[in-house]
Amino acid sequence: MGLISPISNILKGCININTEVTVQGWIRTRRDSKLGISFLNIYDGSCLKCLQIIVNKNIENYNSDILRLTTGCSIKIIGKLINSLGKKQKYEIKAKYVKILGWIDNPSVYPISAKYHTMEYLREVPHLKPRTGLVGAITRLRHFLAQSIHNFMNKQGFFWVTTPLITSVDTEGSGKMFRVSTLDLNNLPVKSRGKINFNEDFFGKETFLTVSGQLTGESYACALSKIYTFGPTFRAEHSNTRRHLSEFWMVEPEMAFSTLEDIIILAEKMLKYIFHEILTNSYEEIKFFQKKIHRFEKYNYIKQLTSTDFVHIEYSEVINILKKNNKFFKNTISWGMDLSFEHECYLTEKYFGCPIVIKNYPKEIKAFYMRINEDSKTVAAMDILFPRIGEIIGGSQREERLEKLDKRMEEIGLNKKEYWWYRDLRRYGTVPHSGFGLGLERLMVYITGIKNIKDVVPFPRTFHNAHF
Amino acid sequence: MGLISPISNILKGCININTEVTVQGWIRTRRDSKLGISFLNIYDGSCLKCLQIIVNKNIENYNSDILRLTTGCSIKIIGKLINSLGKKQKYEIKAKYVKILGWIDNPSVYPISAKYHTMEYLREVPHLKPRTGLVGAITRLRHFLAQSIHNFMNKQGFFWVTTPLITSVDTEGSGKMFRVSTLDLNNLPVKSRGKINFNEDFFGKETFLTVSGQLTGESYACALSKIYTFGPTFRAEHSNTRRHLSEFWMVEPEMAFSTLEDIIILAEKMLKYIFHEILTNSYEEIKFFQKKIHRFEKYNYIKQLTSTDFVHIEYSEVINILKKNNKFFKNTISWGMDLSFEHECYLTEKYFGCPIVIKNYPKEIKAFYMRINEDSKTVAAMDILFPRIGEIIGGSQREERLEKLDKRMEEIGLNKKEYWWYRDLRRYGTVPHSGFGLGLERLMVYITGIKNIKDVVPFPRTFHNAHF
Repeated sequence: MGLISPISNILKGCININTEVTVQGWIRTRRDSKLGISFLNIYDGSCLKCLQIIVNKNIENYNSDILRLTTGCSIKIIGKLINSLGKKQKYEIKAKYVKILGWIDNPSVYPISAKYHTMEYLREVPHLKPRTGLVGAITRLRHFLAQSIHNFMNKQGFFWVTTPLITSVDTEGSGKMFRVSTLDLNNLPVKSRGKINFNEDFFGKETFLTVSGQLTGESYACALSKIYTFGPTFRAEHSNTRRHLSEFWMVEPEMAFSTLEDIIILAEKMLKYIFHEILTNSYEEIKFFQKKIHRFEKYNYIKQLTSTDFVHIEYSEVINILKKNNKFFKNTISWGMDLSFEHECYLTEKYFGCPIVIKNYPKEIKAFYMRINEDSKTVAAMDILFPRIGEIIGGSQREERLEKLDKRMEEIGLNKKEYWWYRDLRRYGTVPHSGFGLGLERLMVYITGIKNIKDVVPFPRTFHNAHF
Repeated sequence: MGLISPISNILKGCININTEVTVQGWIRTRRDSKLGISFLNIYDGSCLKCLQIIVNKNIENYNSDILRLTTGCSIKIIGKLINSLGKKQKYEIKAKYVKILGWIDNPSVYPISAKYHTMEYLREVPHLKPRTGLVGAITRLRHFLAQSIHNFMNKQGFFWVTTPLITSVDTEGSGKMFRVSTLDLNNLPVKSRGKINFNEDFFGKETFLTVSGQLTGESYACALSKIYTFGPTFRAEHSNTRRHLSEFWMVEPEMAFSTLEDIIILAEKMLKYIFHEILTNSYEEIKFFQKKIHRFEKYNYIKQLTSTDFVHIEYSEVINILKKNNKFFKNTISWGMDLSFEHECYLTEKYFGCPIVIKNYPKEIKAFYMRINEDSKTVAAMDILFPRIGEIIGGSQREERLEKLDKRMEEIGLNKKEYWWYRDLRRYGTVPHSGFGLGLERLMVYITGIKNIKDVVPFPRTFHNAHF
């Protein structure tokens, strides 16, 4: 029955002309000539492009099957691989045998017709959206991005660690966490004074979904030197913006014996490696996003990024720049404040016109675990901002000095006792160490040019939205 | 200050003799000779073995620092890489400069002394346990396992897909799920008749942590042909056995245009690839587990597995074998029953003495989505069982025929309406497709020989247990 081949292999020229091949996929379009030849464009998701199948009317089931094929039908074809006479493609298949595997129930209302669909529409059919060229491309890009991250980390000697998703620790101290519980809501166990008795819950205490694997990740970096987590994280934020998801994937490397500068170098190197890899592995997809979404030379822009140094700048300098240009902003800025999205865009798009690394932020706007600088006002934190999307990486050198950490926790009002294990890392052979977090979906938004972060994930979870 | 080098690179011979190097790590042991020389064994987690540092008494801080060093202290050494005169190691460092980065608070009670610690003890200090040689080895093995899985999938043309962890779908129909919610337990919104109003919850409906990414994964396989998920899954099982975790990582490939036989071939190929890879990448660790845990030639056994075909056998045949040997079992078995762990062990350890693939199980003991066979009694399901651990892979061909799927759902009493989107995959261009799930931690248990699955994860989650 011939070599079974993914369409990607055929279109890449991996298979000899005149070989008999078996191809399986779904119909994108069908066109019939007056001469009794049908042209089927089929996809199998292995690549962006469709493969053209030429079916002659003398095939047995031409009238009964071929002429009834509509977008989305699944078929199996055995035929000969030939050089295409048409200009649109290099190769095509001359069918000898076509078997229909699955029809479309009521084709006139098939949700994924071959026409253009808006992202808003596709969100309502997340189970079928991967059948579109666009979502297929997004999915393959996501795969190659993740692969390049794992490869980079592995090459750099980092070990992948799985930190727990169910946790009783609130890393960011934000409190915006999802509760995880098996308590019967209709029959909650109650202690004295009406308090819920979490001793009765599955884990014998109150537990939540993690917002970051960092704190537990640190305990592994303080033993294996270089580790990274790459897993889902959760934020129960009620805001429904185009930049936030309730469930998203984050890469968090953590490196012992390293300073803020070391981690900035690592982050920049990682981004450049990722870009370099996907320019090759997702060439077709990036060119597609360029044409359909960006409408400018994104491919070349990304290529340029792989060899340009990012701008490194102090937070205080950034504030001076922004203050001089306060007239452009809705929100007036001054030292001590966090940047808004409008400030981030101004810096990356207008002022510098490139990715920037901002470092040494006021301690008040950053997390308790960041290392306090000599000025006692700022911490060794850094954010990497990208044009159009703002913050893509956030990191810091961690406070490795117990007394400084304790002081900071007291200032903020954190309960030292709850962090006994985190403090242990500083009591026992403490080392300078640093790390950062990169949101996979933000990076996707940047590369694809897709406006809403919801649309770069298979089944996005946001406020009031969890399909299936 | 010399080349900063991970210990792994030094011990692998990547660095020229007589080069000045900088090494950073933690003390495992210190030994002082009468002649005023101290031998420090240090680890940095990059590999199993320690590096020996020779410190002469004429170093400036010999008395003040070196002689006070205890297990766990973090240090930085600059010195010359030399061939060791001792027989235990090939290389060592002659220190020129030693800086202590972090002391041990009260060394006599440091939880990770250089002596042997039981697993039970280490569970109480999960934040420090990676500092032991054993847990370090487990962590590196886990990393290389995950890498080999991603590499295999990528090479086979599978795309990594992230299916949602927060879900309203119960894939296995088991009901043993964790609720995810932001409802205020002290002030639950109630509808008429005292029912909780989940419209008021974060996602506007009742949501849980997923038990499997399969169903949503299928929707991507039915568009991209070959996909896999690799992420955490959750089971709220109250049983506290040595084989179960509440949070664990699973790889779930799903392949369109494929039958049960195809997926068995894929599973076997994957396991062999993984074993082949780790024999190289985790050579040191596997030899270590062999010596410390297995106490038999595990390395050679795994090597042998990479080139031995697994036994394939029908469920019905298995039952005949077991019935003939019923006297060995606590639980009498007959056709229609699921195998117990004792049966699995008997088959893999005694009867066949190798991994086995059992296929075509009675439909009653398998999930609703599995493809019904022509006999109407069995489904195209398969389990791969390994000696000592039992089931390591479970998979099936999925029911792609809508009318058969509907019939099965009715039999079981599932609400068809809730699965409208899953049924859509069968209404629109349905294709034969199959997939399986492999639990990462079970595989770890198999390779390491560690008895309790809790001990192969950094921060295990089980009934009444969620440290940090």
